[in-house]
Amino acid sequence: MKIVVIGGGAAGLKAAARARRRDEEAEITVIEAGEYASLSRCGLPYYVEGFVHEIENLLETTYGATRTPEFFKETKNIDLFTNTKANRIDRVKKVVEIERDGKTDEIPYDYLVIATGSSPTKPPIPGIDAEGVVNLHSVEDAEKIIELWEEEAEDAVVIGGGLVGMESAEALSRLDINVTLVEMMPHVLPACLDAEVAALVEAHLRENDVKVLVDSRVEEIIANDGAVSGVKVNGSIIPAQLVLVATGVKPDVKLARDCGIEIGETGAIKVNEYLQTSDKSVYAGGDCVENRHLLTGKSVYIPLGSTANKHGRVIGDNVTGGKSTFPGVLGTVIFKVFDFTVARTGLTEREAKQLGYDVITAVAPTPDRFHYYPGQKPIRVKIVADKSGKLLGAQAVGLGVVDKRIDVLATAIQMNATIDDVANLDLAYAPPFSMALDTVIAAANIARNKRDRLIESISPEELKKKIESNEDFAILDVRTEKEAAGNPLSDDRVIHIPLDRLRRSINELPMDKEIYTVCQVGGRGYEAARFLRQKGFNTRMVDGGMAILSVLLKKP
Amino acid sequence: MKIVVIGGGAAGLKAAARARRRDEEAEITVIEAGEYASLSRCGLPYYVEGFVHEIENLLETTYGATRTPEFFKETKNIDLFTNTKANRIDRVKKVVEIERDGKTDEIPYDYLVIATGSSPTKPPIPGIDAEGVVNLHSVEDAEKIIELWEEEAEDAVVIGGGLVGMESAEALSRLDINVTLVEMMPHVLPACLDAEVAALVEAHLRENDVKVLVDSRVEEIIANDGAVSGVKVNGSIIPAQLVLVATGVKPDVKLARDCGIEIGETGAIKVNEYLQTSDKSVYAGGDCVENRHLLTGKSVYIPLGSTANKHGRVIGDNVTGGKSTFPGVLGTVIFKVFDFTVARTGLTEREAKQLGYDVITAVAPTPDRFHYYPGQKPIRVKIVADKSGKLLGAQAVGLGVVDKRIDVLATAIQMNATIDDVANLDLAYAPPFSMALDTVIAAANIARNKRDRLIESISPEELKKKIESNEDFAILDVRTEKEAAGNPLSDDRVIHIPLDRLRRSINELPMDKEIYTVCQVGGRGYEAARFLRQKGFNTRMVDGGMAILSVLLKKP
Repeated sequence: MKIVVIGGGAAGLKAAARARRRDEEAEITVIEAGEYASLSRCGLPYYVEGFVHEIENLLETTYGATRTPEFFKETKNIDLFTNTKANRIDRVKKVVEIERDGKTDEIPYDYLVIATGSSPTKPPIPGIDAEGVVNLHSVEDAEKIIELWEEEAEDAVVIGGGLVGMESAEALSRLDINVTLVEMMPHVLPACLDAEVAALVEAHLRENDVKVLVDSRVEEIIANDGAVSGVKVNGSIIPAQLVLVATGVKPDVKLARDCGIEIGETGAIKVNEYLQTSDKSVYAGGDCVENRHLLTGKSVYIPLGSTANKHGRVIGDNVTGGKSTFPGVLGTVIFKVFDFTVARTGLTEREAKQLGYDVITAVAPTPDRFHYYPGQKPIRVKIVADKSGKLLGAQAVGLGVVDKRIDVLATAIQMNATIDDVANLDLAYAPPFSMALDTVIAAANIARNKRDRLIESISPEELKKKIESNEDFAILDVRTEKEAAGNPLSDDRVIHIPLDRLRRSINELPMDKEIYTVCQVGGRGYEAARFLRQKGFNTRMVDGGMAILSVLLKKP
Repeated sequence: MKIVVIGGGAAGLKAAARARRRDEEAEITVIEAGEYASLSRCGLPYYVEGFVHEIENLLETTYGATRTPEFFKETKNIDLFTNTKANRIDRVKKVVEIERDGKTDEIPYDYLVIATGSSPTKPPIPGIDAEGVVNLHSVEDAEKIIELWEEEAEDAVVIGGGLVGMESAEALSRLDINVTLVEMMPHVLPACLDAEVAALVEAHLRENDVKVLVDSRVEEIIANDGAVSGVKVNGSIIPAQLVLVATGVKPDVKLARDCGIEIGETGAIKVNEYLQTSDKSVYAGGDCVENRHLLTGKSVYIPLGSTANKHGRVIGDNVTGGKSTFPGVLGTVIFKVFDFTVARTGLTEREAKQLGYDVITAVAPTPDRFHYYPGQKPIRVKIVADKSGKLLGAQAVGLGVVDKRIDVLATAIQMNATIDDVANLDLAYAPPFSMALDTVIAAANIARNKRDRLIESISPEELKKKIESNEDFAILDVRTEKEAAGNPLSDDRVIHIPLDRLRRSINELPMDKEIYTVCQVGGRGYEAARFLRQKGFNTRMVDGGMAILSVLLKKP
């Protein structure tokens, strides 16, 4: 049995290693075009900023061995050819034509695994080929960025406000480079987050001295003697000795397409649940394939290291007589940017609405631990459900522990949970780890209150628009005097009555206007709205309270 | 509508507040025997050690208001009577007889909520009433401990190695008191953890200078002039000026029992899924009721603050015309002890076996983040599944992030996940948050390998017994030279061949003996076992590797 793997990344090498563990007799060959195989590319931003010291760290096993060709040969009896290019797949002869040290050769296979990965997209911007325009996708990219820094680049523009754009902006900032981040859409992370959640991330970037330009288009990259000197955005020139292009990646499918393997509608290789391509002898995994979205059933292109590892295991099974399946993905994403963690899973509100769902959303801004526990930090969790209560998605950002909440909600969504299920989860509670009812339970309870018509709400974006208009309404701010003074909500239509005085002061409120109740994080706004509604007032609470609204109002 | 709540803890006050939000017109009265209502008792250990500075912090809302009777009246129109004892419930007249300032009174109800909580058990140890013998259950207990410390107590004995015992041992240690912890069973946390996981916690306690005596019985508490001076354990006297009894709590059911409300087999109040007692007008929640275990369907007594809060919401709904249900619990528990987090959910291996399950277990000791990411710390996750793959339980301990893993697994169990489901969870991956495949996925994959008969294993406990016997077998240690030197496994039956030399050195291994393969955390042991098995050797890998085995071998 001859197994040939094209691509020495996570999917390819995991497939090879798994195949070896299942079948000691198979001949397993891995072909890698680059210098390094099995390098954790997700670690490159940390290498650029100096937080991870050596590129070799990204190649090491947990016990400190370096994943060289010798390592794979000795420990796994896998032939890993680095610096070797696969030129062509001949599916009739079942051979891969390779090129190495200038010579070509053919490697026969019984099973072929295509794990060719992805490359950065190159937007059609004039000047994009100038010296100093880089990506952050490979070791060579990372080394190039460090070189530009050593040559004293002082200003950088990051094109693209997605995940890689964020991580790059942080890495460059930590090298004391002035960073401007340019995003075409009205907010950063347009594919990941809803607008009001993205606004929190933008605010955090600005707090960390990153200039954020949204709704902005890069018109030209200006070069001086071939080297980049600036970027023209919205008609103005921003100085830059380094331009980092982070406009996304595309699957590397040339080899597959050239030999007639089916490419899916996303542009990535189409595979079935066994990760088999349109050719039964050819499997594919990692960044070059599309995945099934577990909620929509549609094909999506969401390349991630975690998914690639799962793919590798499934393929390793199936090329050695197994029958393993990969069910699909939820589009879970997480990253750190400065002191913020940002994560999402499932569908955003916008995506869910586009798909025709009648949605309920809930925003729970809470401390990540019990509020009296020293070191607690704020987090904001938004969940999206359909009217029946089925959980569809979640977003979470903040200084506090966000990854736990997203992982719980990803698990819940993948297991088809409703908001009632989430509200009753027996999660681990002690003051150092959560409030008595964790933020995800609080969010589910808010969503239940909305579904059960105990409460109606206004989104902070809608309220922002109203505030900016001349409409007649009232905002009831029920925060304490101290809170209101610390983060004032200034508008003629604001009435400030702390919650503990509301019952005595009810006659100060207008019966003829809609009243939006707001507090710091939502709980008191909800309580006030419930009280007033039962007293005949027309009220809605403000989702997420001032924790979200004040950031939106301050957004430039 | 008159709603009376007996007990101003989490369940009672949450029920009252929820009822108010649903029904502005109801008359709501809460009766609390003590000085404080709505105090977060879970915070008491942190108060004792000085980490939380003021008792008032444990009474505050997130926005800094103190939960006094005035607060409840003003913000929620709830009558909270503190220092008020409920003497008797008359279910025919539907009144509660109360006693306050020496006077008795009757409060009529339409719906009654019993939320009387729990009290510490008092083991029948001679001398237990001596001055200086305390619990850690109330504010008064906490103040008493601080008083004893101020009186320069230097030595303490904690009786009971459960959760409260652990938290107390840490709190006292942080006050520079010498602590000895005495546990009757062969290991600490007998109700929470399996033996090999508990051994890791014991080792951590010892590293933090807590003396841990397991398999040990407290025979007598010795007093001097009425004040405790020592504790007799296993025939020896341990000096102690402070004895903290942490042998568990029992539900406070006297009021319920006296008025003929049904008590369950656990000794706590029996309730249906609506949290209704045997009297349709009487609801009960919090620490005084039993819960249904979601996996076994049996009644269990597991009092927790998180559960009490959930109870409160359900009761608040149901006493105001709602029809909410509480499905039950998984017995999820978490606590911090020194730098360790310890958590569990569902069934332990021992519990699952006692219930007749044919179990598969898997132990995954990994870093909590990508191993190259600075600040990563080790965790050990054990999962328990039945032979069909259904997930039954999980335990996790370590210096790293444990709560996330337990919450994910609790969610998975509550949603009836299998190990295949867990292995395919689309969890949030980036190097600061997990390995590319999170520890829970690694654990699920190990369990799948066992179920699919790719591997057989020996538990570290079984191997420890074999090592202590004269049996003939071989242990193949495949760690690197450096690892083996740093944490040696010394026995005549150990053969040390690092994994990268194994393929060349296979003829050094005996064909006629069972070979147990071991590495640091399990991965290489698994790989070696797979290789040798395919070459005709009789092998089993050691579950959890040296990460568990070496701790067990060192256990006194």
